[in-house]
Amino acid sequence: MSDEIRSMLLEPIGIIHTPYKRREDIPRQGRLSREMCEIEVFPYFAEGLKDIEQCTHLFVIFWLHLANRGLLKAKPPQDGREHGVFATRSPNRPNPLALDIVELIEVDGNRLRVSGMDALDGSLLLDIKPYSAGIDSFPQARIAWQKDGGI
Amino acid sequence: MSDEIRSMLLEPIGIIHTPYKRREDIPRQGRLSREMCEIEVFPYFAEGLKDIEQCTHLFVIFWLHLANRGLLKAKPPQDGREHGVFATRSPNRPNPLALDIVELIEVDGNRLRVSGMDALDGSLLLDIKPYSAGIDSFPQARIAWQKDGGI
Repeated sequence: MSDEIRSMLLEPIGIIHTPYKRREDIPRQGRLSREMCEIEVFPYFAEGLKDIEQCTHLFVIFWLHLANRGLLKAKPPQDGREHGVFATRSPNRPNPLALDIVELIEVDGNRLRVSGMDALDGSLLLDIKPYSAGIDSFPQARIAWQKDGGI
Repeated sequence: MSDEIRSMLLEPIGIIHTPYKRREDIPRQGRLSREMCEIEVFPYFAEGLKDIEQCTHLFVIFWLHLANRGLLKAKPPQDGREHGVFATRSPNRPNPLALDIVELIEVDGNRLRVSGMDALDGSLLLDIKPYSAGIDSFPQARIAWQKDGGI
């Protein structure tokens, strides 16, 4: 396993441009925001975008560079009670990987214009995956401690 | 940025036990499988699981240790045409992060029994996040080149 652990080093594949310059500017849920954001994929990786314009929604994984990786409990802002970080979407977690689901508005070469992001401006992009309603949509999912549909 | 890049090293927080010992054993889509799998969170991180039993569905992010990180195109098995990797769910991608959405069946201390996984037995766990229908379910999402609901 030690070889695998040594190799778990991530490589930035792009940079995310958003209107959110400070943590306090970020909307609590990207989905609730209609702000337009831009995902710039570095030219070396642009070939990996072929046919992406055929997808209406995307998973975007990026690095939460301000995260505290040592925390295992979090208090979601709208809840106030302490939960384990793996039961919350807190940015403070051992592997600070952010997961946004965005709507793809426009593709211009290696730049994707999207809505629904909650990334800090300048965040490093790690991966993009197509969202498929057939395998990714679970409208029946429930979180018992969640009252208002947020996390 | 160089400091950030150096720090993008992932830490395994657990290990995933599945019936799939070889790549060819893995179902094409975890969602279509009813096999029971077990996520073992290492004791050091178990505190982060508090209240997770209140979630019906979870995002599970794990490391695809057999991936070829140099590929930027992929041919999905049911499609046969070549697409950019970021428009597919191919395991071969620059940052080989797998994203499964699983149904949580049972919690036993630091072990979660789940269905819907497509991980190779022994895969290293990176993160768990609660799936919220309110922010994560997009039944209207479409992928134009996808005919059968698969990727």
